[in-house]
Amino acid sequence: MKLNEKDLADLCRGAAFLGTGGGGDPYVGRLMAQAAMRAGNGVEIIPLDQLADDALVIPTAMMGAPTVLVEKLPSGDEAFQSLRRIEQRLGRRATATMPIEVGGINSTIPLIVGARLGLPVVDADGMGRAFPELQMETFSVYGISGTPMAVSNEHGDMALIDTRDNASMEWISRGVAIAMGGCAYIAEYAMSGAEARRTAIPGTLTLALRIGRTIREAREQHRDPFRALIELLPSTPYSFGCILFDGKIVDVRRETRNGFALGRTTIRSLNGSSTMELEFQNENLIARDGNEVRAIVPDLICVLDSATAEPITTETLRYGQRVKVMAVAVPPIMRTPEALAVFGPAGFGMSEPFRPIEQLAAGRRGDSACG
Amino acid sequence: MKLNEKDLADLCRGAAFLGTGGGGDPYVGRLMAQAAMRAGNGVEIIPLDQLADDALVIPTAMMGAPTVLVEKLPSGDEAFQSLRRIEQRLGRRATATMPIEVGGINSTIPLIVGARLGLPVVDADGMGRAFPELQMETFSVYGISGTPMAVSNEHGDMALIDTRDNASMEWISRGVAIAMGGCAYIAEYAMSGAEARRTAIPGTLTLALRIGRTIREAREQHRDPFRALIELLPSTPYSFGCILFDGKIVDVRRETRNGFALGRTTIRSLNGSSTMELEFQNENLIARDGNEVRAIVPDLICVLDSATAEPITTETLRYGQRVKVMAVAVPPIMRTPEALAVFGPAGFGMSEPFRPIEQLAAGRRGDSACG
Repeated sequence: MKLNEKDLADLCRGAAFLGTGGGGDPYVGRLMAQAAMRAGNGVEIIPLDQLADDALVIPTAMMGAPTVLVEKLPSGDEAFQSLRRIEQRLGRRATATMPIEVGGINSTIPLIVGARLGLPVVDADGMGRAFPELQMETFSVYGISGTPMAVSNEHGDMALIDTRDNASMEWISRGVAIAMGGCAYIAEYAMSGAEARRTAIPGTLTLALRIGRTIREAREQHRDPFRALIELLPSTPYSFGCILFDGKIVDVRRETRNGFALGRTTIRSLNGSSTMELEFQNENLIARDGNEVRAIVPDLICVLDSATAEPITTETLRYGQRVKVMAVAVPPIMRTPEALAVFGPAGFGMSEPFRPIEQLAAGRRGDSACG
Repeated sequence: MKLNEKDLADLCRGAAFLGTGGGGDPYVGRLMAQAAMRAGNGVEIIPLDQLADDALVIPTAMMGAPTVLVEKLPSGDEAFQSLRRIEQRLGRRATATMPIEVGGINSTIPLIVGARLGLPVVDADGMGRAFPELQMETFSVYGISGTPMAVSNEHGDMALIDTRDNASMEWISRGVAIAMGGCAYIAEYAMSGAEARRTAIPGTLTLALRIGRTIREAREQHRDPFRALIELLPSTPYSFGCILFDGKIVDVRRETRNGFALGRTTIRSLNGSSTMELEFQNENLIARDGNEVRAIVPDLICVLDSATAEPITTETLRYGQRVKVMAVAVPPIMRTPEALAVFGPAGFGMSEPFRPIEQLAAGRRGDSACG
């Protein structure tokens, strides 16, 4: 499909939803992609199964703290330079680019690259949401090497990285991104079409588009966007969603450390009777009601404006906001034991076990509240 | 000349002297070079003017905090991997390797590479001493690009870096070195033979050898090693040296920050009547007696054991040591306005102007004390 500008706005809203608080300000990404699409010939989204087995897919993205990105606007050329560097290293032109992360701004970086270079963008990604670290990829879980990886910035500085494993790639490239000013543009996890079909989460770009469109249309038609979302999900691989909490933000603590935005959000119900705490590392990782875990990574924990269902990223959380917290089940490929070892609770140093939101919500599917 | 093991011990002692407190523990470098020389066929040192104009010289070194190196012993293969990476990038084999820094362990890294690969090592370097940062090179001052630069560690992780300028190369590769565990192995400033002759400081490896030998022979012959050194210098491009201070260390403050060993040493005369303060960033940068500057970078400020003239690196300074502080003039190529802008006082953020030690010592050349 050819993406148009109205689609782009919907896609960015849906990507912010899938970003679960992280992944960067989608507005910045939208403006960049809009400019690139206007300058070029638009951008073509292709399904995973349209890739030939020996196609070369080079995913592109940004890395760094979203809090930095807001103050250091990219020129749009950085990720494209990184893709070219990987092509040069491999001695071969890319057939397509792909998101590594559908959540947040990283859904739009491949669109910019695609528009600039006339490359199709694969409708799939390696996170199915946003995650803070580069080894937290289904690509990595199912055996693809992240390196050779190219990291570049707006000054044309470039690092080409090869490492023993993808966790070392994350660690070393993070050092480069911090030195490059807190955020940088990358190409990594180059793979064949066959490998992409085996390891990527299919359909996530169009899922973002559908989520964003569902929210917009519900608003336009004066329907409840939360109910519209909950009704949409069963027709997608993200089969279940519910409202975890409804209240007002009473505290936000955050710091930028080691290139990450770390923090904790406290939300109180309007009648003051209950409180929810969210912990985040770029993305929301766990939702607690007192000692009770109500939702946990990799399931999505999304903070949305109570009235409009507009997704709120962790860097724009502030005291007094009226919000609803929504939890969403992720697809089975993200819940295997191998996947949970990398980006489940243990991957973030948490001792709580993973429990699917469908279970935690006690199966009250008929209701919009999570039990 | 073919370097033998006795030479190596002398060279390492001289390199520690030229390290002016920095450049890493020369004992570690000596053991590594010894092992490499025994395993291979020794190592050949060649003069700068033996290089053909179109020879390819790829300097090799380590970078990082010397305080880390002591606890993270290298395998010896790291720098050689970095050199091979640059060869691969340039599509050409190196004719020779060369130190970027004669002071400290970086005088021995090219010897290890030379012994492993059967490559000659050029008798020259780009610092004429030790400096903490990679743009502080006569190579850089006189127009050679530091990149492409390869950075590797003991796990085989590798980053190939290209930057807009050599200060950015320093900054970004420092991020990589920190992520790689605090120290890493590099190849950079690849240049032709003609460029090496134009920009390198000639004869510094054999100078280190002569300094180390002079100290050893004076000890063996029960002569004053300080006087022997001061008598040696006028026959070298380092034309003048004198004793700045004689006393006991009464305070050392140090911290490892941003990958550097930073600190301040206080030395009191034995009768308690006077005090000298040295500031260091890996290397000693300035010697003060109250408000009076007694010696300043890039001239050498060397802390030596009072009895044996053994050089003491900043990471092994400790309370109670009896030391003499020696100051030495550096060659004219290191004192041009362009050179001083990069590695003179201003290059370290100091407001004091550079004044040659010959002037500060008020011309009392006949005496061993600096006036």
